[in-house]
Amino acid sequence: MVLVATRNPLNIGASARAMSNFGFLRLRVVNPYQVAFREARSAVGASTLLAHAEEFQSVTEAVSDCTLVVGTTAVGRRGLQHPVRRLDAAARLIRKRLTTSNVALLFGSEKVGLSNEDLSHCHWLLRIPTREDHRSMNLGQAVAICLYELARDAKAAPMPEKRTHATAGNVERVAALLLEALHASGSLKTRSAEHTSEKIRRMLRRHNLSTNDAEFWLGMLREILRQLQSGKDPAGE
Amino acid sequence: MVLVATRNPLNIGASARAMSNFGFLRLRVVNPYQVAFREARSAVGASTLLAHAEEFQSVTEAVSDCTLVVGTTAVGRRGLQHPVRRLDAAARLIRKRLTTSNVALLFGSEKVGLSNEDLSHCHWLLRIPTREDHRSMNLGQAVAICLYELARDAKAAPMPEKRTHATAGNVERVAALLLEALHASGSLKTRSAEHTSEKIRRMLRRHNLSTNDAEFWLGMLREILRQLQSGKDPAGE
Repeated sequence: MVLVATRNPLNIGASARAMSNFGFLRLRVVNPYQVAFREARSAVGASTLLAHAEEFQSVTEAVSDCTLVVGTTAVGRRGLQHPVRRLDAAARLIRKRLTTSNVALLFGSEKVGLSNEDLSHCHWLLRIPTREDHRSMNLGQAVAICLYELARDAKAAPMPEKRTHATAGNVERVAALLLEALHASGSLKTRSAEHTSEKIRRMLRRHNLSTNDAEFWLGMLREILRQLQSGKDPAGE
Repeated sequence: MVLVATRNPLNIGASARAMSNFGFLRLRVVNPYQVAFREARSAVGASTLLAHAEEFQSVTEAVSDCTLVVGTTAVGRRGLQHPVRRLDAAARLIRKRLTTSNVALLFGSEKVGLSNEDLSHCHWLLRIPTREDHRSMNLGQAVAICLYELARDAKAAPMPEKRTHATAGNVERVAALLLEALHASGSLKTRSAEHTSEKIRRMLRRHNLSTNDAEFWLGMLREILRQLQSGKDPAGE
């Protein structure tokens, strides 16, 4: 589970407690408010789980060894570019993937949720089916409900999957090379670079690359990039 | 929902919020710690739900208009005299009863849960299936999970997906441009061109491009290709 930019130490503590209740023992935090994180860790009854939480500077690093990255949302917001699945359907997919590799479940900050940049790391989103008139949930409660649903029917043995999914780290390398190629081709205006980067990342997530696909793309993009760069600088290597 | 002898204003507030999230709008409190109850009510963002909470001196009064009274427990405690149902099974029974009459769901205090006297009002108990090693849940989170499960399948209408799939013709154009870019970068040996072409096409099919994805790829590849070709033949077009 990945908490991004969480502000309230009580929410960090409550999330850790729910994780322990339902047997999810690996917590990662990205840019937590340092005071909140320290307070949560030093709170009475803070779990060893919290003591072992890993801290990251970016979502990119936090999810790099995962093959599926799922964001959480209260829908109804900005034009979402991602498929949104209801928690029950989402949990089935996540459980299945968990049998073969790591899955990251992202929760945003209490105030603003996940940013567009955060979302660009996600393959798809899940939402808890709340009342339309009051969608925004307390973070600790949202975490608890998601984990309850994930732990549901824990012994429903899923089918093994044959293809191996590319890790987020691999996909990120494809995105980076593609962006570099666009740079090298001079088509990327500085102003739109960030937007394009997010757009690329979102699309690659949707493409659902296998390990082999990622390798194939990396190979092709390296060749293209080499040529682009040598073209730019004829004196170069 | 009936909160019995709750101590922590944050838990009262969180319970009210979850009730609102899932559409359960009648909160009753029995002997709350007065300070906690006042604080919860006056907290920023306290709901009208909380303002309308009814206060009782005893469980007897609080449940008097209900035909089914269900207690919550973390099991494992004292020799329980009641049948204990797992939340999912319990929720089915409660939903059924709710179609004809009122049901009371009792939550005890944070420290000791429901007393034997409280339990004596219950028809049966429900438990949330947590890990054996760590059964005790945060009150606000337990409430949220119970209400989520109760609200389950209310209107199981899944979100339709809006994306339109790219036509085969579109995908083929992406494949052709990509192949051309590889050619232009000099990385494609004639012998392997056909093989690479097939490999690209297969992979793009798997990527399951939307119309927008296809347009995005075409745009990027055109830019890259233009640069590759201009690099090759600086005097060109």
